[in-house]
Amino acid sequence: MSSPIPVPTSPAPDILRCAYMELVVTDLARSREFYVDVLGLVVTEEDDEAIYLRSFEEFIHHNLVLRKGPVAAVAAFSFRVRSPEDVDAAEAFYTELGCPTDRRAGGFVKGIGDSLRVVDPLGFPYEFFYETTHVERLAWRYDLQSPGALVRLDHFNQVTPEVPRAVGFMESLGFRVTEDIRDDQGTVYAAWIRRKPTVHDTAMTGGDGPRMHHVAFATHEKHNIIAICDKLGALRLSDHIERGPGRHGVSNAFYLYLRDPDGHRVEIYTQDYYTGDPDNPLVSWDVHDNQRRDWWGNAVVPSWYTDASLVLDLEGNVQPVVKRAEPSELEETIGADGFSYTRKGETTEGFKLGHQL
Amino acid sequence: MSSPIPVPTSPAPDILRCAYMELVVTDLARSREFYVDVLGLVVTEEDDEAIYLRSFEEFIHHNLVLRKGPVAAVAAFSFRVRSPEDVDAAEAFYTELGCPTDRRAGGFVKGIGDSLRVVDPLGFPYEFFYETTHVERLAWRYDLQSPGALVRLDHFNQVTPEVPRAVGFMESLGFRVTEDIRDDQGTVYAAWIRRKPTVHDTAMTGGDGPRMHHVAFATHEKHNIIAICDKLGALRLSDHIERGPGRHGVSNAFYLYLRDPDGHRVEIYTQDYYTGDPDNPLVSWDVHDNQRRDWWGNAVVPSWYTDASLVLDLEGNVQPVVKRAEPSELEETIGADGFSYTRKGETTEGFKLGHQL
Amino acid sequence: MSSPIPVPTSPAPDILRCAYMELVVTDLARSREFYVDVLGLVVTEEDDEAIYLRSFEEFIHHNLVLRKGPVAAVAAFSFRVRSPEDVDAAEAFYTELGCPTDRRAGGFVKGIGDSLRVVDPLGFPYEFFYETTHVERLAWRYDLQSPGALVRLDHFNQVTPEVPRAVGFMESLGFRVTEDIRDDQGTVYAAWIRRKPTVHDTAMTGGDGPRMHHVAFATHEKHNIIAICDKLGALRLSDHIERGPGRHGVSNAFYLYLRDPDGHRVEIYTQDYYTGDPDNPLVSWDVHDNQRRDWWGNAVVPSWYTDASLVLDLEGNVQPVVKRAEPSELEETIGADGFSYTRKGETTEGFKLGHQL
Amino acid sequence: MSSPIPVPTSPAPDILRCAYMELVVTDLARSREFYVDVLGLVVTEEDDEAIYLRSFEEFIHHNLVLRKGPVAAVAAFSFRVRSPEDVDAAEAFYTELGCPTDRRAGGFVKGIGDSLRVVDPLGFPYEFFYETTHVERLAWRYDLQSPGALVRLDHFNQVTPEVPRAVGFMESLGFRVTEDIRDDQGTVYAAWIRRKPTVHDTAMTGGDGPRMHHVAFATHEKHNIIAICDKLGALRLSDHIERGPGRHGVSNAFYLYLRDPDGHRVEIYTQDYYTGDPDNPLVSWDVHDNQRRDWWGNAVVPSWYTDASLVLDLEGNVQPVVKRAEPSELEETIGADGFSYTRKGETTEGFKLGHQL
Repeated sequence: MSSPIPVPTSPAPDILRCAYMELVVTDLARSREFYVDVLGLVVTEEDDEAIYLRSFEEFIHHNLVLRKGPVAAVAAFSFRVRSPEDVDAAEAFYTELGCPTDRRAGGFVKGIGDSLRVVDPLGFPYEFFYETTHVERLAWRYDLQSPGALVRLDHFNQVTPEVPRAVGFMESLGFRVTEDIRDDQGTVYAAWIRRKPTVHDTAMTGGDGPRMHHVAFATHEKHNIIAICDKLGALRLSDHIERGPGRHGVSNAFYLYLRDPDGHRVEIYTQDYYTGDPDNPLVSWDVHDNQRRDWWGNAVVPSWYTDASLVLDLEGNVQPVVKRAEPSELEETIGADGFSYTRKGETTEGFKLGHQL
Repeated sequence: MSSPIPVPTSPAPDILRCAYMELVVTDLARSREFYVDVLGLVVTEEDDEAIYLRSFEEFIHHNLVLRKGPVAAVAAFSFRVRSPEDVDAAEAFYTELGCPTDRRAGGFVKGIGDSLRVVDPLGFPYEFFYETTHVERLAWRYDLQSPGALVRLDHFNQVTPEVPRAVGFMESLGFRVTEDIRDDQGTVYAAWIRRKPTVHDTAMTGGDGPRMHHVAFATHEKHNIIAICDKLGALRLSDHIERGPGRHGVSNAFYLYLRDPDGHRVEIYTQDYYTGDPDNPLVSWDVHDNQRRDWWGNAVVPSWYTDASLVLDLEGNVQPVVKRAEPSELEETIGADGFSYTRKGETTEGFKLGHQL
Repeated sequence: MSSPIPVPTSPAPDILRCAYMELVVTDLARSREFYVDVLGLVVTEEDDEAIYLRSFEEFIHHNLVLRKGPVAAVAAFSFRVRSPEDVDAAEAFYTELGCPTDRRAGGFVKGIGDSLRVVDPLGFPYEFFYETTHVERLAWRYDLQSPGALVRLDHFNQVTPEVPRAVGFMESLGFRVTEDIRDDQGTVYAAWIRRKPTVHDTAMTGGDGPRMHHVAFATHEKHNIIAICDKLGALRLSDHIERGPGRHGVSNAFYLYLRDPDGHRVEIYTQDYYTGDPDNPLVSWDVHDNQRRDWWGNAVVPSWYTDASLVLDLEGNVQPVVKRAEPSELEETIGADGFSYTRKGETTEGFKLGHQL
Repeated sequence: MSSPIPVPTSPAPDILRCAYMELVVTDLARSREFYVDVLGLVVTEEDDEAIYLRSFEEFIHHNLVLRKGPVAAVAAFSFRVRSPEDVDAAEAFYTELGCPTDRRAGGFVKGIGDSLRVVDPLGFPYEFFYETTHVERLAWRYDLQSPGALVRLDHFNQVTPEVPRAVGFMESLGFRVTEDIRDDQGTVYAAWIRRKPTVHDTAMTGGDGPRMHHVAFATHEKHNIIAICDKLGALRLSDHIERGPGRHGVSNAFYLYLRDPDGHRVEIYTQDYYTGDPDNPLVSWDVHDNQRRDWWGNAVVPSWYTDASLVLDLEGNVQPVVKRAEPSELEETIGADGFSYTRKGETTEGFKLGHQL
């Protein structure tokens, strides 16, 4: 492992929650069709360059910005902090780490005020802000909601080569680990970390990075997620469905993974559990447990392991991707030498495991 | 195609619905665990040799008989007819066809009276009966129902080499086709046929036969099916899940396929549509349409195409299996020369199609 | 009881199912808002005088006709028969009974061909037809479906003073009783009768009649019904909700009763059970059983018992309403002398029963 | 209004969440039937005097203690704090206020360590603790979960004569108001206050107090709540259902109110929204808005307004109940002078409002 990232003496900002992602898309009209016409996110504001979208229970200006650009990538993982002063704290924290930072009193996007953007020690573009325009919380506006209504931004998921190193850094930023995937040799394949008391605000997934694995929106119930699949089928867009729907082992949530027109991965997610107590028990999963990623043991398509979105630096250039040196979860669990089990200790492979994948 | 099966001059019996399946299982205790402890079917009666099970909305004695035997197989596909006289009609119908028949005034199994069993021209063991013991309809007994309560036997599914020949025969028996899968060359890969006004009481699936593809029970809602998956995961029995859950293209129902301890396939199924009008429109699907078997375009595991249960003759011997000579749906849609599409005319293969399967 | 209605020697037509209702509404635009904008029924066709609506799984032209008229009323309860010849059979059947009839080869409304309309011996305007224009079955069109999508016309419900007399007549027309509400003195308060194998195609509810109690559409799941309530709340139209949602005792279905802008009652209904066997067990409920109308014992608002829509004769005049002479279910179960119980034999009244209503 | 409760100079403890309620019940066996056999709460531990129950996603020892006693009442509203030191902070805070306090290093009940109990300035018995025995989080144990599985303790609800005074005090304890019910004259009828980022950890309902209005458990989905009603019907216990199920206006949650064998009110609740941002917008409802308590405008039964459970002091004596002097929500909204509206400004009363209630 590379050397750990130092813990700044400057106190971490008090982060409330993941708040929005700024996504660069190559065809704004096509992305609008996907996020607005198909997924039904609410347009707070839009122009020729960008569309500002929110979920039905949100009262801040947006949870997603789609910005037209030449290369599909993530421009910012943005977190809301508890107070204006926490933006200062974030600036001091990252400055002490020697990270590139950019502070703009007027914000980087519409609807968001004083903001700090940084490239963090893991190579990800992060944003911190408190000030934001309040908009109508449409929770009660059932007349506007489709059968697959997205009600909350739930979490981000980031790909990084060294998960323990990333998690260590995120703990210094005030995050707590709720679940992880490990093996008996001590390799950590992924970890879920949170500020708000759900299973995560973001996760660190082992792989070539920095890349963005997915951004996740929550629905109220499982049938809402099924409705999204049904609608994609009706529109002959079912090839946007990459994986699921299914039940996660990790997080116990019901899930679906979609790919947007640029290949950005979007998860639809519902019903994880409360994690807000400081002694909330860590749940560790064996990488060979076939129910860790899908509680029903359904196959994870390889693209889900291998594909992810590029991320940008503060100048808008694509961040270089570093190879993961540690074992890959895909290879450990599928194919020649890898294996999964349904019941630990049983080695017989059924029709679900092995050559059919 | 082999020569068509002649249409008897004797009128067909008036069949109400698929009523029960008699399944031979090799380990009665293990099968009981699966069907009673996991799936929650109701035990009407049981002894050392057989277990009689019913669904929660049933009032006849049973919908499934598990009988201990040396070889896992289907002993009978049993249909209820409208009157005692219809058993006579069935006897005349099959006798005219020269089929082996066995009539027993006391029935072949507990809870069922005067019955006719035949080996039909397609090689399947069919039963017809009217008399049956009434038992409590447990529809209102929510105190007994699990989260995945099975409320009705919905349909059978049979594997036979020549689908049009099988369907022609079944039409002479009074069945009507509701949906099918075809190609531009005129090959029929599968057809769904009904007596009661749902999409099917049985289906004819092209393949080596006679074999039994699956028996299907209905739940009320989609979350009931998800609950069965969740329970299988909790019991570390997720390898019983073969395919799904998902949305069918054909039938528009929500589905799940399980494999019982002997490998017999059980479908859990909900929400197809009313088909009872005589001019109910036939829905034909293109074999290359990737949404025909799963509306979301999710992969059909090869075992679902290739595996099926043996069936018995009236002496309890395994019926020989005849190879299908026509093209196979599996080969037409997956792999080297086969292909599927999400949008007809588009040839680009995405991550969902092609090499990853 | 009045003398029974004679059984014609002419055979009854073979009725498939309740097919559509023609409703006279006083403000077509307001009714369109309710049925199309709020409930989401599909417009097959419309003009200045009438709107033709269907549910998402229907393939015949319509399930509901809204026709502009001076007095809110029902112009026709329309049933589909199995063949063109069954319209002739219906004509002979009602002619023998001496009922007013009107036969039109071109039909009475758009999309429906050769039809017979009658005023039946109970005073209700009934229609029988086979010919109809086929339209797209939108079952797979999830892109068009709202969270409360109505997928089928399920049943009608008629108010008539003498339930046993009405049921006797309907049995001669080929209907079968599935459930009823009675008391120990032999009074029948309501009965559910069916042709298609659900709990009913229509019901006879004891009261001043002939009047129309409600027309019912089915959804797939319970949350679809809840979604309709939520939407009505969001639109500040919750005063259209008269009763429910709840679980019926009778039929075991989940229900909701709405009142349209003219006061016509519409039920939304889901998940009753299969009744297609000739020996399907009759379910009789005690009129004092507090769970018969609502399985949870929730109060039935008095308007639900007392209000109903007028019906028209073949000239479009309002049919006179005859008082029910037998005991009223409302009075038997609520208030001064009436009573209900949760557990038979227990007389203690809880907060749910008695004075609070 | 009485004079406000002073704000202590001693800092408030950092409260995580409502954690458990200790309920005194008069018949432990009957209460066990209700909470364990019917509602399916998990027994962590039990003896002749008390039963310790938890929900399926809980990892602390219990969420509910049923203790046998002579008078049905609440012995403690218990909150978990962030650290052991926060119990000290709570002690200092209430001691400064002159409240009766009792500190026990070994806790007052099994499974809970060092605890402080107080009678707060509003007369309620509150408990604060950090130490607790961890038990298995049964979130993944779908094999144990019934169709109505309760997954979390969600909130308490307290009855107190002066809502603004109570809320002022609770704000000094670190709570934040999320929603309230008011009128144009400035009367506050109820307020919802939270620590964890849901709509509430407790609510202050205007009425004669101190009394306990209800304790609420969460399910995952709406059908889980319906399943509880269906089961109560099947067991002929529907008279435990007091109000609902329905959709709240306040909180936007789906709800059901039950009464346990002693009359203690239990709410089942699902799907409110995230409130964790410091500028989370307050939602104020007009007391005359007929959708505030039930989004569908369904009637609130009077018992729901008038009945509540007694609370105990630290010696186990019943706290005296003080009358509310301000206007009553029941009288403001129902009956002679009171009124409700569906659409502000419209005065026509429909069948839903007025005399039928």
